[in-house]
Amino acid sequence: MSSIFTKIINGEIPSYKVAENEKFYAFLDINPNAKGHTLVVPKEEVNKLFDLDEESYNQLMIFSRKIAIAIEKVIPCERIGLSVIGLEVPHVHVHLIPLQKMEDIQFIKKVKLLPEEFEKTAKAIAANL
Amino acid sequence: MSSIFTKIINGEIPSYKVAENEKFYAFLDINPNAKGHTLVVPKEEVNKLFDLDEESYNQLMIFSRKIAIAIEKVIPCERIGLSVIGLEVPHVHVHLIPLQKMEDIQFIKKVKLLPEEFEKTAKAIAANL
Repeated sequence: MSSIFTKIINGEIPSYKVAENEKFYAFLDINPNAKGHTLVVPKEEVNKLFDLDEESYNQLMIFSRKIAIAIEKVIPCERIGLSVIGLEVPHVHVHLIPLQKMEDIQFIKKVKLLPEEFEKTAKAIAANL
Repeated sequence: MSSIFTKIINGEIPSYKVAENEKFYAFLDINPNAKGHTLVVPKEEVNKLFDLDEESYNQLMIFSRKIAIAIEKVIPCERIGLSVIGLEVPHVHVHLIPLQKMEDIQFIKKVKLLPEEFEKTAKAIAANL
């Protein structure tokens, strides 16, 4: 069965897309730690980050860096945190999270955004790529 | 003033070294979330991950990947988590953390290890590089 991220990539589940190329897809986390919280996912459904071959891993990290730099231009924050955990969805995903304080990267506090805020944020990040 | 990590790299503060090359230094976190929790630091004292130039960022990620794969061979775990936060020490550091559950990457629970356990763990990871 396809992962939830594969369904998002295929458009079976809607998402607030930030960027896409032939290998990766970036979109806003629908249950964000902070406004601008973005997920970057390889289209290939690989479970663990360090199971990606070196080339794919490098490309994922380079792609994530570009997205992070764009997020930083759009969302006021101390810095952009990067985290790869993956205990819940067995499909590699890089969290890029605008940080003000430690709890923003602890996945214990979530923020609520309206659909139009997601839409606007995704467009603003995309426009800064 | 030098960061605590620069002092570690220069040997002014002792550390359980895992690996080193001309650009990066990897050592065990002395206040680990889990056994095998390793920090990878560029020798150049840069504050934020995404302020590293693309080449240095890529090299840091490639170096971190090698360390993570070695940790995974040594420490029983579900997977190795990767996190870059940096709100506390203004010198880029990649956390590589053996994960069993979500709280292992939340920096809320710490484990105590004896000096000989740190020593043995660092050597075992280094031996698997």
